[in-house]
Amino acid sequence: MEKLIPVVVIKELSETDKILTALKNNGINCAEITFRTACAKEAIAYACKHYPEMSVGAGTVINVEQCQAALEAGAQFIVSPGLSVAVAEICKEKNIPYYPGCVTPTEIMQALELGITTVKFFPANVYGGLQALKALSAPFPQVKFIPTGGVDRSNIDEFLAFDKVAAIGGSFFVKESLAKMEEK
Amino acid sequence: MEKLIPVVVIKELSETDKILTALKNNGINCAEITFRTACAKEAIAYACKHYPEMSVGAGTVINVEQCQAALEAGAQFIVSPGLSVAVAEICKEKNIPYYPGCVTPTEIMQALELGITTVKFFPANVYGGLQALKALSAPFPQVKFIPTGGVDRSNIDEFLAFDKVAAIGGSFFVKESLAKMEEK
Amino acid sequence: MEKLIPVVVIKELSETDKILTALKNNGINCAEITFRTACAKEAIAYACKHYPEMSVGAGTVINVEQCQAALEAGAQFIVSPGLSVAVAEICKEKNIPYYPGCVTPTEIMQALELGITTVKFFPANVYGGLQALKALSAPFPQVKFIPTGGVDRSNIDEFLAFDKVAAIGGSFFVKESLAKMEEK
Repeated sequence: MEKLIPVVVIKELSETDKILTALKNNGINCAEITFRTACAKEAIAYACKHYPEMSVGAGTVINVEQCQAALEAGAQFIVSPGLSVAVAEICKEKNIPYYPGCVTPTEIMQALELGITTVKFFPANVYGGLQALKALSAPFPQVKFIPTGGVDRSNIDEFLAFDKVAAIGGSFFVKESLAKMEEK
Repeated sequence: MEKLIPVVVIKELSETDKILTALKNNGINCAEITFRTACAKEAIAYACKHYPEMSVGAGTVINVEQCQAALEAGAQFIVSPGLSVAVAEICKEKNIPYYPGCVTPTEIMQALELGITTVKFFPANVYGGLQALKALSAPFPQVKFIPTGGVDRSNIDEFLAFDKVAAIGGSFFVKESLAKMEEK
Repeated sequence: MEKLIPVVVIKELSETDKILTALKNNGINCAEITFRTACAKEAIAYACKHYPEMSVGAGTVINVEQCQAALEAGAQFIVSPGLSVAVAEICKEKNIPYYPGCVTPTEIMQALELGITTVKFFPANVYGGLQALKALSAPFPQVKFIPTGGVDRSNIDEFLAFDKVAAIGGSFFVKESLAKMEEK
């Protein structure tokens, strides 16, 4: 898994090239394209076709319909803000990684029952940040986390230094990548 | 929906008139009468009969039995501290609004699956307050929140200014209304 | 129920005597032996046999397999970091107390539906500490809590003074008991 998972919101399909090129040029070979916009499915299909060297997944997937649309478009992984048992079961059947948002021990236990050992932790800053991840890792040493929300340049190194952090999710990688591209 | 939802705890049925009159005189045409007291069902029935101009609902409904009792008494909406799937299904069948407490993304996704788009957020101060609502609104732009618990005069305007806040729940409206009535 | 529930992590079976003797000598007649280590089941069986005067339970039980192993070993109570419906049902059938971790109102309502009125609250410091317990007790006056995680000598008295606190969970009792024994 890439260590940085940029949360990409594509409002117009025409933006896809600019954003994915910026990420790639910035050394980020991964994109979680969110299902918050009307063109999400098309953008995932476009990205999968034109950026085969990148790992392209779908984010903010909150139900079975979106999950199926994302998989049809070619999404290579699925991310949800919370845990959907139905989405987990589809992903398991298709052998696609699913990263559900889990913030309480009960939610983490549900993920483990579904065979999931890497979970999103969102909103990370609201639910106790790194201190929470350390506390949760005591009873759940087998779990890896993808903290998202409130992680930024000021604290990313601390999160990455903790061995239970699989990756960091965030939209700030996108802004940074676009800014760097414009500087050139 | 009214913007202020007073959480009303009625210990003796005889208090009902005083409290509801105080709320009405203070411009609040809504009351969430909680199922924490023995006379809750009677108080809801009394309030529905004598204050037809007010929107009277039941609060702290934690199971199917309480939900059915509240609906028999005439409750016009149902509020729970957390999400009960069984209560949600009864309310859907009877076409009665149900506002379950949801604090994690997983709980919000469960509410959305049940067709619920307005949720209580309780205890609001414990689970990150306005900052949490803003973070949760990013993946859930379709959701409106009723923050309850720790909202008071010092921060209510900030909460109401956020467009994803449907209403504010709290017991302090009751105290304020009673105090104003006594001043007169 | 004992007021202090030490969370005991036994790495080698041979440590069991030392730790349980230290707890006993320190006036603590209870031990929650966690299922985080390979020898957990053996340690519980050993403790039940050799320390019949102590209340020995299993902690960090996250699934049915662990629950059954713990009960076979003689565990007198079961603790989970979160709530497992399947574990709750086994414990109910066997009439064994089950203390699941519940941190949101939705999780507490699920526990109540399963007939559970005493829940673990973990990680206590991450989910709002004593302030959270007080807020949650308003709609759930029938619930008792076992705060665990972040409770230490600096705040234990405050927690114990709140009448909804059934007991305190923590690993620091173990360290304290061992230190006292070594002083002698």
